[in-house]
This record gives sequence, structure tokens and C-alpha cells, in this order.
Amino acid sequence: MPYVTPLQDFRFALKLAGLDDVLKLPGFEEVTPDLVDAILEENGRFVEQAVAPLNVPGDTQPPVWKDGSVTTTPGYAQGFKDYAAGGWQGLQHPVEWGGQGLPKLVAAAPGENIQAASLAFSLCPMLTDGVIEALLTVGSDAQRKQYVPQLIGGKWTGTMNLTEPQAGSDLAQVATRAVKQEDGSYRLTGQKIFITYGDHDLAENIIHLVLARTPDAPAGVKGISLFIVPKFLVQADGTLGRRNDVWCASLEHKLGIHGSPTAVLMYGSGKGEVGEGAIGYLVGEQNRGLEYMFIMMNAARYSVGQQGIGVSERACQHALAYARERVQGRAVEGSPGPVAIVRHPDVQRMLMTMKALTEAARAVSYVTAAAHDKGTHHPDPEQRSRNRAFYEYMVPIVKGFSTETAVEVASLGLQVHGGMGYIEETGAAQYYRDARILPIYEGTTAIQANDLVSRKTQRDGGATAHAAIAAMRETLRAVENEATRASADDREGLRLLRDNLDSAIQAYEAGVAFILEQSPTNIRAVYASSVPYLMLAGVVHGGWQMARAVLACRRHLAAGSTDPFYGAKLATGLFYGAHILPRALALSAAVRAGVVADACGASLNIA
Amino acid sequence: MPYVTPLQDFRFALKLAGLDDVLKLPGFEEVTPDLVDAILEENGRFVEQAVAPLNVPGDTQPPVWKDGSVTTTPGYAQGFKDYAAGGWQGLQHPVEWGGQGLPKLVAAAPGENIQAASLAFSLCPMLTDGVIEALLTVGSDAQRKQYVPQLIGGKWTGTMNLTEPQAGSDLAQVATRAVKQEDGSYRLTGQKIFITYGDHDLAENIIHLVLARTPDAPAGVKGISLFIVPKFLVQADGTLGRRNDVWCASLEHKLGIHGSPTAVLMYGSGKGEVGEGAIGYLVGEQNRGLEYMFIMMNAARYSVGQQGIGVSERACQHALAYARERVQGRAVEGSPGPVAIVRHPDVQRMLMTMKALTEAARAVSYVTAAAHDKGTHHPDPEQRSRNRAFYEYMVPIVKGFSTETAVEVASLGLQVHGGMGYIEETGAAQYYRDARILPIYEGTTAIQANDLVSRKTQRDGGATAHAAIAAMRETLRAVENEATRASADDREGLRLLRDNLDSAIQAYEAGVAFILEQSPTNIRAVYASSVPYLMLAGVVHGGWQMARAVLACRRHLAAGSTDPFYGAKLATGLFYGAHILPRALALSAAVRAGVVADACGASLNIA
Repeated sequence: MPYVTPLQDFRFALKLAGLDDVLKLPGFEEVTPDLVDAILEENGRFVEQAVAPLNVPGDTQPPVWKDGSVTTTPGYAQGFKDYAAGGWQGLQHPVEWGGQGLPKLVAAAPGENIQAASLAFSLCPMLTDGVIEALLTVGSDAQRKQYVPQLIGGKWTGTMNLTEPQAGSDLAQVATRAVKQEDGSYRLTGQKIFITYGDHDLAENIIHLVLARTPDAPAGVKGISLFIVPKFLVQADGTLGRRNDVWCASLEHKLGIHGSPTAVLMYGSGKGEVGEGAIGYLVGEQNRGLEYMFIMMNAARYSVGQQGIGVSERACQHALAYARERVQGRAVEGSPGPVAIVRHPDVQRMLMTMKALTEAARAVSYVTAAAHDKGTHHPDPEQRSRNRAFYEYMVPIVKGFSTETAVEVASLGLQVHGGMGYIEETGAAQYYRDARILPIYEGTTAIQANDLVSRKTQRDGGATAHAAIAAMRETLRAVENEATRASADDREGLRLLRDNLDSAIQAYEAGVAFILEQSPTNIRAVYASSVPYLMLAGVVHGGWQMARAVLACRRHLAAGSTDPFYGAKLATGLFYGAHILPRALALSAAVRAGVVADACGASLNIA
Repeated sequence: MPYVTPLQDFRFALKLAGLDDVLKLPGFEEVTPDLVDAILEENGRFVEQAVAPLNVPGDTQPPVWKDGSVTTTPGYAQGFKDYAAGGWQGLQHPVEWGGQGLPKLVAAAPGENIQAASLAFSLCPMLTDGVIEALLTVGSDAQRKQYVPQLIGGKWTGTMNLTEPQAGSDLAQVATRAVKQEDGSYRLTGQKIFITYGDHDLAENIIHLVLARTPDAPAGVKGISLFIVPKFLVQADGTLGRRNDVWCASLEHKLGIHGSPTAVLMYGSGKGEVGEGAIGYLVGEQNRGLEYMFIMMNAARYSVGQQGIGVSERACQHALAYARERVQGRAVEGSPGPVAIVRHPDVQRMLMTMKALTEAARAVSYVTAAAHDKGTHHPDPEQRSRNRAFYEYMVPIVKGFSTETAVEVASLGLQVHGGMGYIEETGAAQYYRDARILPIYEGTTAIQANDLVSRKTQRDGGATAHAAIAAMRETLRAVENEATRASADDREGLRLLRDNLDSAIQAYEAGVAFILEQSPTNIRAVYASSVPYLMLAGVVHGGWQMARAVLACRRHLAAGSTDPFYGAKLATGLFYGAHILPRALALSAAVRAGVVADACGASLNIA
């Protein structure tokens, strides 16, 4: 199935998220609407031609490990070369370092697009982004000069080394050791696992960012430092020197994203050209490694949320194409012969659910990106701070909601194919396998939800959530007005959207209230409710944006547009209101049942 | 992960479903409670020792096709020999044919157990059951004598051949031809796909039941006949004769259930020892093939529902064992050091959701089996007819709900493992892959839902659904009384169960009303709501049975039982009430939005 860049969807979602306002922010003067359009189109061409064709080969011909090094899927190396040559790695990075300095909002669409085209391929650029961002934020001048231009230019790539066998979600257990040498560098020894693109042949060097512990460091998370460990040491003139003592010991055999090599990395086996111990360089101050990692975390989590949207988009396209082509069964209302299955009401329910979830997740993520841009670039400090708070609140939702729904969307996509969906050659199963990593890596949904209830909801007493709720109520009133004005044909869908949005907002408000009420006295109940609370927030924020989309479409149609795009988008928004928004009722009830749920859960310890 | 037969869960669910009453039915005099216990225990031993160890090898060393024949996973042939020798194939079949003539209720537990142990392995016996049942119901005396004892004895196995490339859910398109020969037999030519255990080396012969069309047959489903096509012809003395002209052309490369060979079968390529065309024998009357297949269908659909429960049970056991072993992170309420992750509230939420869905699906399926037994064996005709109607109503729910939730449970099980869940060696991913076929084969969830809304709800004007609702309200009153009597500690959980069950029953009633109201005028809206209606019914019937389980546990505890089993089961029931039952609100809203949903879906045809 060829992948098609959903250009019109991108443009619509960007506009809905406030692209016009973002482009007016100081610092983005040179990013004109025409430039944005040109980027979207050029990215669309590149992604369709160079990246999308890598998706299936990555799945069926995964990277191979041999004698300590990794050969990637045929075509990946060329794909990455093209990616670098196109300047795509620099999209969101500063101009002074060779990037294009685009707003996060503008970079969001190409970011999503490449991930839709091939999740496994796009992980390499995504992690490199994280390394660039970390070095720009906390690296020394010398470090930045040494590494960043090469990373942005796509000559080298980056990795993030957090996990160890005993240290997954709990980084307090990190045991990799870093011992200071006389020349100021460090020697690292230890084992890291689940290192995405930990070794490969796409680029001439790999810059590992590694969490490790110095001998005198305090126990726990406050004793972790961050180190740069290049695969090949970089000489003063910038050329590559000796092979460092970091080696890929094996690759994991995973459920999906087969094209992405997931490495076990051994630091300090003595096999390199530097003696025993991988040579590393401290980034920033000692013992602040976790804090630095968290700087990148928001960006990485946001990107994984986009991966969810990308996989969802691709699964939608695949299922819709199949449903339009596959002829099976007569129409339930009667038809002379068999019809394409897209005509069947339940196939429509599945496809509409897929589309509604995908479009809602995209709208939410773009609004979040816009808040990032306003939070960093708005001239008014009050606006900056309000937008920053909204961005921080939304990141765990973008990550958690978009990835949990990606699993649902991919599963529905498979179901649309019937028995054919279960056959690997059809391709629908790959999305189902690939998507399943998304609610796990860069912090599981529970980790996102913990962040959401604690740092993002409790800490400000619910202020950010309440501000969003107040804004939602404005949209609610606009939908109400629109329903009143609508013709009889359109009224039922708008009424249902209004009623369901109203109930959903109340359900969300009740969820927020539960988190705030219970936090002082029953922290276990709060955490028992945290994932349902995250999903509740996702469903309702999605509904809010879909309601805004509905209003925008009706404005276009009222203005005389005959573009079928707006009719279809309107239908998806109304479907979300009718079918998806009521999930808020169930999720809110689950949130509010946290005390009972936690008490019930205690039975697992004993039974 | 060794699989452990959940014996106490089986006993509890059997009792809750009315085992005592079923054993008193005429015809089951010889099935004593002691015999039932002995069967469960013996089955548990057999399954744990002989079947469960085949689960991973089936996944990693799938059957191999070479030169037209199939070699199964090492160990499968021995496993099937042991299965046959133990008499397990005959469990639910009549004594006069070599079976054990057990009630469906009693056979349900061993049936679920073997599927839990290895879904891929157990498909062969399951399909053989279907062939036995078809032949007993519509085969001639001679056909029954020739095939049934060999099938029940496990010497031969059976398959069901429905699907063709152009005829999946829509069997009207079946094109395989059957031409009558002078000797009264038929010659079949055509291609069948997705034939489970279509070829293998587990038994010396395979009896294919094949849907095909005679030259003079009317078009559509009314022109399909059913034929027996043995792999090897059976001679008058019962020994095997010539190799028939049916050949496995290839095996499918599937997402899961790798151990089960899914064959493309070619009828009539001229390669056998019988000339061109596979020799087949008409079963029953011409042109009534689909009707006959439907006889088996309820049984097969029920069995697939049990597969869902089996996979769920196994995924629960796997995840719970991991969560008790894996130490990661401190307790949110504070702990001196890291704790087993089973202590974390969100891990508990996931595990409790898994357990609650599994136990509810099991309770519902056993109640359904009991209705089958009363429907066939009760001396009172009114009771027979009432129970038969309930059984018929519940079969699509057992199939649809238990399999959709199996996908959810398997996915949660993977999530409990975090990153390790994504690594194939961990084993959690296999359940996620295996489970995904269940909402597809033997009729997709949509096909089940169509059956539920049309033949099972509309046709009797909702009488069966309303009778169930009335019975649910009796349970509701009992929960209310129990809540009033309960100590302060227990009251909150019981209150929440009562309130949520009350709302859920109302939500279900509203769903039934929508189906009945819309059926005469807007059939598309009904079908747009059919799957949400099925899931709604599943959630609420599950809640009803879990409420009955809660009451039963409280009786045991009030009577002084100190068995921790009842405390744990009570907790699972209350969790279901608090966390799962509210889904009824969202599902009912989706059902009632059918008109709008259908209107929105129309956008897919044009956009």
C-alpha cells in the first residue's frame, strides 16, 4: 500500500491549532505561510518516495548483528543519506547550528509524516533530535561545536542510554559506572539494554548519551550523571579517531518495529582501540544527569505521541483502501449484488472510529505544539507562562492518549480486513505489531499518567486543567449556537455533539476534582485512577478540538466551499461527538472509583 | 511460564452457573459431582503436562509445507496421540458413539483449559468437534458409522471448508463445484482458503466438510450443498484406500497461532489416486449446506468464545507471575526500597482489569452452557424453550465479547511487562498475536452482532433480552440488601456495584429499545449500532454474573470460610462493578447514536 501524505489534513490541523498566530510570534518572522506550504509539500514528496517504501522491508528483513556490528535493512542507509541531504534532521533546530529553526507546530507535520511512512526508520532521526536538544541545552560550547553540526547534518546519529536490566521505569537503579581519568574524561563500564539504533551502518559515527554513576555519587536518582560516549572518538580537527570501547552485544527479537535495531550495549569490554572502559565526557554538572534527561523527555514524549498519530494515519489509509476495493455481501438496506465493504454500517463504524481518533489525536498534538511555541516566543510573559503550563500539562496526554489509541486504531484496521488482516502479507498486522511499543517506550502510559496527576495537576491545584475546561465551555456555547442555526438535517449531529461534549466536560471536571481531593490523603487511590484520568483528558481534549473542527468546517461550507474535504471532516467530527466522547462517562466513573479500585487491587498481593 | 489449570475458578464458575441443577436433568444421571471433579482434575493434569508445553514451540517452529503435505511442530503429533488416548475428543459427544455424553456445562471447563494451554494446538480438536456434530445431526446412518467413531476416537480429524478468496463473510459467493457421478458420489473442483488444520501429520486421515455448488443449483446461499471429502477414501471395511484429489497448496504466514497450519486447499488438481476431481459425498439434502453449517456454527462460535477466555486466563497468569517477581520502583505510599511491581496501583489496575474481564467472560459462558443443557434436557417444555432462547441469544455475545476482551486482556498483559513485553522471548507478545484472530474467525464480531440484533433481538421483539433484564433486577435487589447489611469497610464497594449495575441495566435496556425502535424504519442505523450493542450486552451480562459471584463469595465468607480464594474473587467482582460496568454508559450512548453514526459513515463513500 503506497502511503499518501495527508497534506490537506495537515494544513487544516495546523490552521486549527493557530498557525497564523504562531507565525506572527517574534523569532519566526522568516517562516512565511508560503514557506510552510513548500516545506509540507517537499516533505510529502520526500517521505512518499524515499521513506514509505522502507516500511515493509524493515519488517521482513530486519537488521542483522554479526561480530559486534549491525547491518540494517537494505535501503535504510540510502534512505538516511537522502534524509540528511534533504536537511530534514534540522527542521526544528536553531538556524545558528545549521537547522531551520521552525516553530514546533510547523515541524510537527513533517515529523508525524515520516513516522507514518516508516516508524522503524524514523526512530533514528527521532533519537538524534533528542541528543541534539540535550547537547544544545546542557552541553558545553566545545561539546556543542564538536557534535551538534554533525548530528544536524545527518553525518552522525545519536542514542539515549537509560535502561539497564534492573533499571527500567526506575532509573534510581542505574548501575553503569563512570570513573574520572586524569585528562578529565571518564571511563564507563556497564550494560545498557533496549538501545534504539544502538548500532547501525547508517552513519559514520554514533553519539551515545549515557546515564551512569560516578564512584562517589549518592545512591538513587540524585547520583546519576550524563555522559557523551561516541562510537568513534572525535579528534581535535573533527575527524574520527579510535574505536571506543562500546559494543553491540546482541539485538532484540521484538514483536514489531523490526527495522529498528534494538541493541544491548556493553561499555568497557576492552575490545576497542582505547584500552578497557569506554571513554566518555561529562555533560553539564555531575549528578544532574536525570534532570538533563528530563529536558529531552518532553520533546521525546511528544514525538512518540506523534508516532502514534503517524501509525494511526497509515493504518487508516490501508484499511480504507481495502474497504473500498473488497467486494463482499449485499448492502443491509438491499442492493442488486455484492458491494464494497466500505458500504457496510459496521465497517463504516470501524473506519470512522479510526479516523476520528486519529484526527482528534492530531488536532490535540498540534494545539500542544502551538502552546510550546507561544510558551517560548510570546512577547507577553503571562501568555508565555500560561502556554508553557498548558504545554507541560498536555505532553503526557499527547504521549499517552495518541499511543493507546494507536493500538486501538491499528487493531480496528486489522479487523476491517477480516481474515486477510491476520495474514502478514496484507500489511495490516504490521501496524498492530509496530504500534504496540508506543504506549511502552519513552515512559509507559502509567509513567505519563503519574506525571499528569502529580506534576501537572496536583502541583498547580488544577489551575491548568480548569483553564482548559473554561475554554472548552466557550466552544460548547459556540456548538450550541451552531445547532440552533442548523437545518433540520444537520441538527441531530450537532445536538448530540453539544450534549455529549457537555457531559464529557462535566465528567472531566469531576475527574480533576477527584485527583485534587484525594491527593492529600489517599495517594494510592490517585495513582489507581491516573491512567483512566489521562485517557479521560485525552478523550475530552480530543472532543474539544473536534468540536472546533466541526465549527471550522461549517464556516467553510457556509461560505460556499464545495470541497468534499470539509464535508468529510465535519462528518468525522460529528462521529467523534456521537461515538467517542461518551467514553468520558466510563472513564470518569473509573477515575472516581479509585478508592474502591485500589482496595480491590490489594487482593493481588495475597491471593 | 508453566500454565496452571485454574481448578478452583472452574469449580466456582460451574457452581455459579447452576451445575447442581444441570446434573439433576434427565439424561445426566450418571454424571455425578464426583465424576465432574475427577474429570476436571484429570484434565488439568493432562493439559498441564501434555498440551501447555506445546504452546511456545508451536509459535517458534510452525508447521512446514513441502511437496503438498504438512509437517507439524515437533511434539504436536505426540500431543494429539495423548489427547486421543485420554478420550478428550469425546467429552461432549454421545455415549453411543464412543463419547462421554457430558453436559455442555461440564465440558466447558476442560474445553477452555486446553485452549488456554495452547490455542494453536487446540484448534484441531475444536474443528473435529464441529465435524462430529455436523455428521451426527445431518449425516446418514452410514456416514455416521463410517466417520464418527474414528473422529471421536482421535484416529482421524476434521475440517470445515467454507471460505474461498471471493467468499469470506459472504458465503453466497461460494464457487467450488460438485458434479454428481454415476455411483452417486460427487467430484469436487475448486479452491478453499483459510482451512485450519487443512493438512497435517497428527492423524492418519482428515475428513473435510466442504461447501460447494452443484451445476444445477440456484445462485446465492440457497444453492450451496455440504459434502464429505476424506483425504484418503474409506473402504467398505473401514480401512483407508486411495489418496483423494485434495491437496494443500500452501500455508499462510499469519500474525499468530503459528502452530496451527492454515491451508489453501485445492480440490481437483488430478494429482491423487482417484483421477481428476476430489471424490465427495453429499451430506443431507442438496442445497441445504449452509443451513447445516449453521447447525455447527453455534457450537463452534461458543468454542471460539472459550478460546478468548482461555487466552485471557493464560495472559493473566503470565502477567501476574511477572508482576510478583519483577522489582522496580518504590511504593507510591513510600517503601524502604524498590518493591515488586504488583504493589503499584496502576499495575494492579491492569491486572484487576484482566482478571475481571476474564472471570466475567467465563461466568457468562458457563451460564450460557447451562442454558444449552436445560434447553435440551429439561423435562418442562416451557423451561426448555426459555433456556434455548437464552442460549441462542447469548452465543454471539459469548463469541464476540469474550474475544474482543481477549485482545484487550492480552494487550494489557503485554503492558504489565513494560519493555520486556515487547521482546518475543518473554512470551506475553504471543498471546497478543494469538488472541487477535479470535474476533475474526468463525464470524467476525460484526457477523455476531448482526445475528444478535436480527435473529436474537428483533425477531422475538426483545423478549429474551427483557427476560434477562428482569432477572438482573432481582440480582440488583440482592446486592442492595447486601450493601445495607455490610460493615462500613465493605459498603463502599457494594454500593458502587449496586449503583453501577443499576445504571448499566438501564443503559442496556435503552440499547435494546433503540434496536427495536429503529429496526422497522432504519436498518442501517441498527447495524451501525450492532457491535456496540453486543459489547454493551457483554459488559452488562458480565456485570450481572460478577454481582452474583460477589453475593456467593459473601455467603461463603459470612459462613466462616477463611479460604483466601473467596476474598480475592469478591475483590475482582467489586472491581468489575467499579471499573468495568461503567463502560455500559459509553456503549449505550454509542448504540443510541446509531442514526447519526450511520449518517457520518456515508462520508466514507465519497471522500
